[in-house]
Amino acid sequence: MEPVLLYGIPQGCSFGSIVALEWLGQPYRLCRIDMLRDMQSHLYARFHPDRKTPALLLEDGTVLTESAATLQNIAARGIPKGFGFAQGTREFDRLNQRIAFLTTTYFAAFGPLWHAYKMDQNSPVPGVLREVGRETVAKANEQLESMLANSEWLMGSRKSLADAYFIGLARWGKYHRVVEPGQYPNVDRLIHRLEADPAVVFAHAIEDERSAASSGGFRGHIALEELSHRLAA
Amino acid sequence: MEPVLLYGIPQGCSFGSIVALEWLGQPYRLCRIDMLRDMQSHLYARFHPDRKTPALLLEDGTVLTESAATLQNIAARGIPKGFGFAQGTREFDRLNQRIAFLTTTYFAAFGPLWHAYKMDQNSPVPGVLREVGRETVAKANEQLESMLANSEWLMGSRKSLADAYFIGLARWGKYHRVVEPGQYPNVDRLIHRLEADPAVVFAHAIEDERSAASSGGFRGHIALEELSHRLAA
Repeated sequence: MEPVLLYGIPQGCSFGSIVALEWLGQPYRLCRIDMLRDMQSHLYARFHPDRKTPALLLEDGTVLTESAATLQNIAARGIPKGFGFAQGTREFDRLNQRIAFLTTTYFAAFGPLWHAYKMDQNSPVPGVLREVGRETVAKANEQLESMLANSEWLMGSRKSLADAYFIGLARWGKYHRVVEPGQYPNVDRLIHRLEADPAVVFAHAIEDERSAASSGGFRGHIALEELSHRLAA
Repeated sequence: MEPVLLYGIPQGCSFGSIVALEWLGQPYRLCRIDMLRDMQSHLYARFHPDRKTPALLLEDGTVLTESAATLQNIAARGIPKGFGFAQGTREFDRLNQRIAFLTTTYFAAFGPLWHAYKMDQNSPVPGVLREVGRETVAKANEQLESMLANSEWLMGSRKSLADAYFIGLARWGKYHRVVEPGQYPNVDRLIHRLEADPAVVFAHAIEDERSAASSGGFRGHIALEELSHRLAA
């Protein structure tokens, strides 16, 4: 059976993996995980003990977690098509560099904001964390802004899986109200270019449960309960 | 000329890349970067605009940054020797998963502590951040502790570049005084196993400027000034 991506709502960073699978064009299924409900079940812990998304259930019944690892798996499948890159090439290094920047700096910059989001709002701590998060997100966006000064996409002149991952994270700036439109023109340009991409339009429709036209290999949803027998022992 | 790793002191997460290069066994050089001094120079910004380490100057004069990307480059060089893994294999996925966990969760858990470290200590903010950092580091260590329940190394039964990266980060628990010996027995066991490894002993000696015996391909230090003519335009 085709691989199944377990994606999280709301606002999961798994969004990028949906986009990546669409771009790949090979058959896949999706499994919807409400992070406030399904993720807390014993069943979900069998797929991902740390209770996060994404989780990619592979053909052999093993589960691959972590966005960066999921994207590298998808990239490897896409080498013949030319959107993943072979080990030992500069493009392989560059894609890894961009994805690592996004995990280590960009994703992590939102850490204080997510931490505050989950806390008792009557303590003074969330307020302090939100101020720190505003700073770290601003710094990450400044770095991204100069990285994009002469580049249409994150890797340069061509779209890559780093862009897929980015567009799932970039929306957090608006969600936490720490980034204003127009603050980072190069970053905004990349966001607008990606938001017009059919795979991104599709991923939004999937998250929002609107009817969605796949331009890739989407073969439908499958429920978590139905997946458990596919897990390797 | 052989690749040159620019590593940061004190406490750089580049430590893991030194260990990885030792394990690889192929010729390499090192360039020492004092993060409080050299890193602030205009010259260093030509190697790494975000002023971090590691930075790996490659044979073609390009610079590869981000620990995860550097380790994946080193892993690809080591495929014939069997410590890196080919794309499309489960081992490739698993190594990427472990490295991504370390960047996204373990490295990021120390973010609030490093943020506090650099701040004016007269404000109440560093104290709040240290408490949050204590929690995030504890949670990351708990996840690691269960990951290591039945595993000798991070990937399972064999040592990998994920262990190299880990040992450079694990020391931060002691440095920031947020982890006590004995709190996480499985994690401690991995730390002790790694601290006895000749490559880790070597990397400590390099950082501390003690005489060091390479069991790999170390060809000596080179100064940042001497490296600038090797940078690609």
